[in-house]
Amino acid sequence: MNMPPPTTPSTPGTADAATAGRFPAHRPSRTIVEPVSPMVDGGAFAGKASIGRPVRIVADVFTDGHDVVFAEAAVGSASSDAVRTIPMAPLGNDRFEAWFTPDELGRWNYEVTGWVSHAETWRLGTAAKVAAGLDVEVEAAIGAALVAAMRATPHHAATDADLARLATLGTALESGNTEAITDDDWTQLFHRCEPRDAADSGAPLPIDVDPLLGAIGSWYSFFPRSTASDGDVAPDAPGTLRTAIDRLDHIADMGFDVVYIPPVHPIGTTNRKGRDNSTNAQDGDVGSPYAIGSPDGGHFAVAPELGTVDDVTALAAACDARGMKLALDIAFNCSPDHPWVSEHPDWFVRRPDGSIQYAENPPKKYEDIYPLDFETDDWQALWTELADVFRFWIERGVTIFRVDNPHTKAFAFWEWAIGEIRTAHPEVIFLSEAFTRPRVMQRLAKLGFNQSYTYFAWRHTAHELREYFEELSTETIDFLRPNAWPNTHDILTEQLQHGGRAGFVSRAILAATMSPSWGVYGPLFELLETSPRDGVEDYLDSEKYEVRHWNLDRADSLAPLLARLNEIRRQHPALCDLASITFHPCDDESLLCFTKTDPAGIGDPVLVVVNVDPFAEHRGFVDVDLAAVGLEYESSYDVVDRLGGTTHHWRGNRNYVELSPYGAMAHIFTVHGHRPAAADATNDDPGRTIR
Amino acid sequence: MNMPPPTTPSTPGTADAATAGRFPAHRPSRTIVEPVSPMVDGGAFAGKASIGRPVRIVADVFTDGHDVVFAEAAVGSASSDAVRTIPMAPLGNDRFEAWFTPDELGRWNYEVTGWVSHAETWRLGTAAKVAAGLDVEVEAAIGAALVAAMRATPHHAATDADLARLATLGTALESGNTEAITDDDWTQLFHRCEPRDAADSGAPLPIDVDPLLGAIGSWYSFFPRSTASDGDVAPDAPGTLRTAIDRLDHIADMGFDVVYIPPVHPIGTTNRKGRDNSTNAQDGDVGSPYAIGSPDGGHFAVAPELGTVDDVTALAAACDARGMKLALDIAFNCSPDHPWVSEHPDWFVRRPDGSIQYAENPPKKYEDIYPLDFETDDWQALWTELADVFRFWIERGVTIFRVDNPHTKAFAFWEWAIGEIRTAHPEVIFLSEAFTRPRVMQRLAKLGFNQSYTYFAWRHTAHELREYFEELSTETIDFLRPNAWPNTHDILTEQLQHGGRAGFVSRAILAATMSPSWGVYGPLFELLETSPRDGVEDYLDSEKYEVRHWNLDRADSLAPLLARLNEIRRQHPALCDLASITFHPCDDESLLCFTKTDPAGIGDPVLVVVNVDPFAEHRGFVDVDLAAVGLEYESSYDVVDRLGGTTHHWRGNRNYVELSPYGAMAHIFTVHGHRPAAADATNDDPGRTIR
Repeated sequence: MNMPPPTTPSTPGTADAATAGRFPAHRPSRTIVEPVSPMVDGGAFAGKASIGRPVRIVADVFTDGHDVVFAEAAVGSASSDAVRTIPMAPLGNDRFEAWFTPDELGRWNYEVTGWVSHAETWRLGTAAKVAAGLDVEVEAAIGAALVAAMRATPHHAATDADLARLATLGTALESGNTEAITDDDWTQLFHRCEPRDAADSGAPLPIDVDPLLGAIGSWYSFFPRSTASDGDVAPDAPGTLRTAIDRLDHIADMGFDVVYIPPVHPIGTTNRKGRDNSTNAQDGDVGSPYAIGSPDGGHFAVAPELGTVDDVTALAAACDARGMKLALDIAFNCSPDHPWVSEHPDWFVRRPDGSIQYAENPPKKYEDIYPLDFETDDWQALWTELADVFRFWIERGVTIFRVDNPHTKAFAFWEWAIGEIRTAHPEVIFLSEAFTRPRVMQRLAKLGFNQSYTYFAWRHTAHELREYFEELSTETIDFLRPNAWPNTHDILTEQLQHGGRAGFVSRAILAATMSPSWGVYGPLFELLETSPRDGVEDYLDSEKYEVRHWNLDRADSLAPLLARLNEIRRQHPALCDLASITFHPCDDESLLCFTKTDPAGIGDPVLVVVNVDPFAEHRGFVDVDLAAVGLEYESSYDVVDRLGGTTHHWRGNRNYVELSPYGAMAHIFTVHGHRPAAADATNDDPGRTIR
Repeated sequence: MNMPPPTTPSTPGTADAATAGRFPAHRPSRTIVEPVSPMVDGGAFAGKASIGRPVRIVADVFTDGHDVVFAEAAVGSASSDAVRTIPMAPLGNDRFEAWFTPDELGRWNYEVTGWVSHAETWRLGTAAKVAAGLDVEVEAAIGAALVAAMRATPHHAATDADLARLATLGTALESGNTEAITDDDWTQLFHRCEPRDAADSGAPLPIDVDPLLGAIGSWYSFFPRSTASDGDVAPDAPGTLRTAIDRLDHIADMGFDVVYIPPVHPIGTTNRKGRDNSTNAQDGDVGSPYAIGSPDGGHFAVAPELGTVDDVTALAAACDARGMKLALDIAFNCSPDHPWVSEHPDWFVRRPDGSIQYAENPPKKYEDIYPLDFETDDWQALWTELADVFRFWIERGVTIFRVDNPHTKAFAFWEWAIGEIRTAHPEVIFLSEAFTRPRVMQRLAKLGFNQSYTYFAWRHTAHELREYFEELSTETIDFLRPNAWPNTHDILTEQLQHGGRAGFVSRAILAATMSPSWGVYGPLFELLETSPRDGVEDYLDSEKYEVRHWNLDRADSLAPLLARLNEIRRQHPALCDLASITFHPCDDESLLCFTKTDPAGIGDPVLVVVNVDPFAEHRGFVDVDLAAVGLEYESSYDVVDRLGGTTHHWRGNRNYVELSPYGAMAHIFTVHGHRPAAADATNDDPGRTIR
């Protein structure tokens, strides 16, 4: 230490000895790696990805000063030792990205490393000096030393061809010749060959890979007991799982991917609900399928009037045969008649009067349902039994579960149960039906639900929809996958009640184009059912409490629209992306305009404009940031309406649209940009698409 | 398990045995705790807080279902076993907050716990049933059991008075009397007394507590060698640290808190820079104080022409005597003449021709500076020596360091050095002068710099300022504390060059009111200096390379404005808050309007409107969300301009302002709301302020 003459009595620098033991064990890398995405709560939960679909890894990687840094992602399935390393591309502002496509279901992990490239720093600096006419004799010698070091201890990714090229470069540099360094493919070679003093992102970050239907799919729900008119039974008799099979062609013809049915289990009779949620059931009332359990069994049984366990397997197989999947509804509700009530009385809360605590939301009572007590001392047996419900149906051919009200069961149970089941069955998909507060929905998504119902049904204005999908496509994109439903068998929104056909059309288009997964409560959506039970956003004469019959051949059915939407989604994969959604201003606040692109880079970009007001025509200019669809400012391009069929030639960012309940409520455009002629005068395909 | 008759050959539920060992050791709490703030990278870095200033702890706490949850924060200094527990208040949507005021410097930790309150759930449910006229006989019995459990094993926070009240309640409930439960203070009592099945936020989350000046202060910088005209020396002679002492009264009179001076060390002569950054120094050129080191010494020495190490101590003491603090500039640059160059040649990079690598940004060269090599094998000695520089000056009375270009030194060094020094000297403050990319600035803030220079100088429009301060007040608020400077000795923005006096006024007001810490490069700001060196945003005839003399008594000096701004900041602590900053729309896009409140809840809310355009008058309505200042929609209130002195009676959210270069460029209003008379007709002080 260089000390000045003592000027004060104290002895500076005497802390050395005390701190010497607190140094890091090795000189730390100068590089910093901050992982960005996919990352959920710092790695406490897994991100989500789909098999066969590109995953984007993003990290911030930087060092002190102005040296060039390189970054690399290492990705591997937890069940294999194979690791893929992917060089990361700089995006500017210290951010890097890499893409990979998982080819195996289950848990994956990734790690990002970053390091200073002295070779690339030297190469770019020397090139700048050459360009400025400076003498680079010393730089050539520095480069020769760097090349010699690379050849002496190359990184293991170096190829023989790399080393041969380095040998040639070394010889040139030793003779003072720097001509070769302006070639930009040295960047990749140095990335492969240079020894690394690398930093990494810490512990490996988890990603759970599930089937594509975990993220992207079209869902259709119906009540099997209301399918009698489809089959060979007496006209007024209830339908069964077998008559439900007869309904499948109709659903497959509309292009749906998932067929979802309410619980199939025996329905309790004690305190059974009557029609329209009445507490006084009449003779012959069929009860709610959510009041589960009777002397015929509980969650491992099928209601005799619907069929048998084998019929569920047959229904699942019939779905498979049509390219669809069956989703079973698992509701951990017990009717007072559920076998668990007598077999496991300690799984329920007993009141001081000896009765079992029914569900309530004071002062409301739901006496047909006994909630399970997740604070029971017998929790391990309870958890095991509930997980076995899923296992039971998995063994019988079901791989998708719509889970009813998961937010009223302990979070720790779900985390354990989904983890256990996913380990053995990574193909299984859980949809969380938690219409509740945001933190609760988000936690369920974090702990493992593949996808979640959303607030879509209650986001009506263009502003609300934009704000909501901006949140879904950024803040929660790593873990919460939305499934958007205009209606469900519990939800008939005021907008659908009053908006007429145009309202149904607008809402179906919004759900199918904004959200990778969407669904409808089928027959009542197709047939424009709008009658609410008094004062609530629910259906009158609801199928939850009675058997209905539907004429699906009605001329005014929306089935053709639903079929077309599903067809367009298949043909234009950009529509099923969420991360790329970008909203664009419109002059009219009832017009919602957004674009999406295909992350695989194959499909055309899409540009959707929807009139969200079912009552009036809206018109005006949309102002599209063309960069969002890969076009240059002031480009000319064609937009082809995949719904209406028309093609428009648009120019620049501002273009006119008008959408009306009396005409089209939306455009679902694909965007076809032209390269500017001046930029590529010899281009023999002037109309080729920019992606 | 309740199994149906076998219908398929497979045996359901056989996974039990395999999973039994994977249960959690104990039944997990039903409650989820997700800490929100202060939290930096999930707890990898410490949040920041100031001694004596309220800290807000925020967490999301929730459970399954609809039970009431309670939350509590436990806070303690790492150097003490004392832990404060603070009940957290619900903010809605599952978010809770608690406030505490640290009374000790150094590392603190906090933890959040949450639990289901069965007692409060019961109390509210029963009250709802009573209100609905339902029979609550069973509920009284349930309550009696809950009370008995609380009395049997109360939480340790229960007081004797609590237990006595519980005894009374128990007796009443046993006789079926539920009258007492409507009293809301049971909430607090149950919080204290009920046994808890709690979840916590995981590992304790760190917070570093530093002196108030770490967050809030007014900074003034000047060159001691340009203070000769203040003192008893020949008129053209350079100033010294002693003449700098004579400058302090002027600075203290303006109300500044921190006096910051450039490096005081010996200046090298090899490749010394001449006036205006010329590479050909002339005889008599004094050199840049950033080219540190000469035969007179390096970072432990003082340039002989400035004085001695004791003079620094005297200057620091003279600042202290005036209620200010001295900030020393630590720049780890070495001139070729620095003693380290010969004593530690391995701390520098040697080129193949035997020369030492100078600083460069190819093709530019900075041959007067040798950068330290943080990749040296002798890194422990280098780190130790650099940390000793801080220790040396701390031992001589300096507690604030403005660190020059920390982003060109290894991050790992800063994390280690600041950690080491802070452990022994928690009173020391480090200001990061890293005018570089966001991730780099943020990382330096995370790893321990108390505060950071900002992009403020280059944020000119109201939109830019709003966007930047929205980011500073949300995304980075837990770790990056901004210090906003309209100018520095390196920065004379184009706006200041051309905006005239109104530009200086507008920029000073913006810095002083938007940012808790702000500063000016003093004499040249006071005296409206606007001459740039050709083509760069830097000063002509810069003090960095020559001695200047200033007449601070000029009639047009901005000193009175600066003094008034600092006075207003002291009188109205809301101005020094950042988290509460809320921006409000204005009709005119050159008017910036924002409000702030005092987190201690004592000072008045403030409402600031600034004309950011120095060239023209701007007028229009501002549209203030009155909730941001604690007023009701459509309130009437007085706004008192602390700058201009006028008072206006405003009503509702939209009110008119006009601000002009020829009149006032800004209003700094305090806001004085009246309680609506109807709400409190007997109020004998109708004008009392709502805070």
